[in-house]
Amino acid sequence: DKKLKLFSLNSNRELASEIAEEIGVSLGKCTVNRFSDGEVQINIEESIRGCDVFVVQSTSNPVNEHLMELLIMIDALKRASARKINVVMPYYGYARQDRKARSREPITAKLVANLLETAGTSRMITLDLHAPQIQGFFDIPIDHLMGVPILAEYFENKNFDDIVVVSPDHGGVVRARKMADRLKAPIAIIDKRRPRPNVAEVMNIIGNIEGKTAIIIDDIIDTAGTITLAANALIEQGACEVYACCTHPVLSGPAIERIAHSKIKELVITNSIPLSEEKRIEKIKQLSVAPLIGEAIVRVFEHRSVSDLF
Amino acid sequence: DKKLKLFSLNSNRELASEIAEEIGVSLGKCTVNRFSDGEVQINIEESIRGCDVFVVQSTSNPVNEHLMELLIMIDALKRASARKINVVMPYYGYARQDRKARSREPITAKLVANLLETAGTSRMITLDLHAPQIQGFFDIPIDHLMGVPILAEYFENKNFDDIVVVSPDHGGVVRARKMADRLKAPIAIIDKRRPRPNVAEVMNIIGNIEGKTAIIIDDIIDTAGTITLAANALIEQGACEVYACCTHPVLSGPAIERIAHSKIKELVITNSIPLSEEKRIEKIKQLSVAPLIGEAIVRVFEHRSVSDLF
Ligand SMILES: Nc1ncnc2c1ncn2[C@@H]1O[C@H](COP(=O)(O)O)[C@@H](O)[C@H]1O
Ligand SMILES: Nc1ncnc2c1ncn2[C@@H]1O[C@H](COP(=O)(O)O)[C@@H](O)[C@H]1O
Repeated sequence: DKKLKLFSLNSNRELASEIAEEIGVSLGKCTVNRFSDGEVQINIEESIRGCDVFVVQSTSNPVNEHLMELLIMIDALKRASARKINVVMPYYGYARQDRKARSREPITAKLVANLLETAGTSRMITLDLHAPQIQGFFDIPIDHLMGVPILAEYFENKNFDDIVVVSPDHGGVVRARKMADRLKAPIAIIDKRRPRPNVAEVMNIIGNIEGKTAIIIDDIIDTAGTITLAANALIEQGACEVYACCTHPVLSGPAIERIAHSKIKELVITNSIPLSEEKRIEKIKQLSVAPLIGEAIVRVFEHRSVSDLF
Repeated sequence: DKKLKLFSLNSNRELASEIAEEIGVSLGKCTVNRFSDGEVQINIEESIRGCDVFVVQSTSNPVNEHLMELLIMIDALKRASARKINVVMPYYGYARQDRKARSREPITAKLVANLLETAGTSRMITLDLHAPQIQGFFDIPIDHLMGVPILAEYFENKNFDDIVVVSPDHGGVVRARKMADRLKAPIAIIDKRRPRPNVAEVMNIIGNIEGKTAIIIDDIIDTAGTITLAANALIEQGACEVYACCTHPVLSGPAIERIAHSKIKELVITNSIPLSEEKRIEKIKQLSVAPLIGEAIVRVFEHRSVSDLF
């Protein structure tokens, strides 16, 4: 009679509590501290021998701290005889370093996959990888969940009249297409071009946006440069209002200020990365992925497929 | 005709420059920055194809940042077709987490060894591991250098009359013995005991220290609790003066204040970990391991033994 144990590290304690509530367990007891010299100190405070363990941790900022906490926790779980070690990583950091864009660059997304396997991960549950190819960086099973249904549902309930879903670049068209299907709306694409070197980029819009409510969708919003420029271009070129949404609110550097001062009416995000106090501005609406992840955990534990979850 | 390339990451730039000078090369060009969201960004700016590369990095505080920089650099070097990737790690962080002292603890020193091998390390050069057994955590060759000769030489030149070398605990006796042999001096051992639970520790000293210059030696000084208590006990119990020395100046938390206010006359350390500005107090004397490490690098490059270096 095998047992499910759910642990949280330091990146997403609130989300982990919500997930625990969803699936009706209490969080495992475990201290995750720092020694005086900054080294991670972990002690698991209850037996997990023979259990299927799920560890919730996003490798969000500070990414290196969160990743090392996770690797050290996996090591401790392995030595404490866990049956399976399932890493639940709502946000997979270093995902943008997924190829050599220039000579002599690392492919850190692959390195991280290797580190997680070396430490002893049995399986990964993750959400909206920056590139779906990152699944292939692992030799262990991966459950790749999607944020689109959660974001789409929010906008469905708004009952907008005339919507267009906008991809902020060519790389995001597949995601925008999925969202548009759910909302029964057309899509448009922002086609950024630099006519000559050292000349400002032109925000050309492919598709009809005239008089419509535009919903820009992306996987990650980091410094928010792309998305706020796109929003302003959409308004200038005839959209009547602009919403934006993404799964992973990295929101580093000038992001919050840019969003606050942009033409974006509302930014809808998930809690794959928690929002620190100073990032909770009125324009930002955070949706929880706890029901989605909770359901995925239960299905993995019961050896059922998660592929119809989205 | 193979080539030697020496790179520095962010933990020990000054030491790396000294090593470069010792062996007559210039440091390899490489940028090691952070993206806006805190992720490590590395780009190697010169060809290293077919070269024997040496990367200098201590996993000192901030240990997780320094370790991830190193792992990502190794990944980049591997993909850029380095012939050999030699990690020069003057201070091996997480070395004290080298066994399960309690149930359900990690063995992070072993995890780190696995991570370094997974990333692509060919060989390690390191200095005074907290436990020599950590060599066995690796399946790749390790050159394990010793700080004792450098520290001993400094005290030899002081021409003290009547020396005793003191180990601050039973774990450090072998190291103290090596130092004492070089200084042709006897040893003493601090035998800490707690007579009953919740009663203060007693600092019992085994060996004759009466009227002598005591030199305490340890591998790591972290919060400096042990060493400053030992120094005070030595003076109380008859030593005429107390020096202290160690290879790795971790010096976290209250360390500097404790040392400043202790009966330690001088603390002699190496630059395996650099001293930040606020730690450079008059009582602390820093010796360079650059000649030792430089010689080890040259010998490894030329396939010569380093075992007679100490
Ligand atoms: N944390 C990061 N922040 C900003 N840019 C990044 C980050 N990680 C990788 N990159 C760069 O982003 C580019 C890939 O992003 P993308 O084209 O959106 O897949 C590459 O040039 C990477 O070097
Ligand atoms: N960074 C650290 N700072 C303080 N203590 C540590 C650190 N890492 C491990 N330890 C603990 O130190 C003890 C081992 O130290 P030692 O007995 O000197 O080998 C174990 O109980 C470890 O849990």
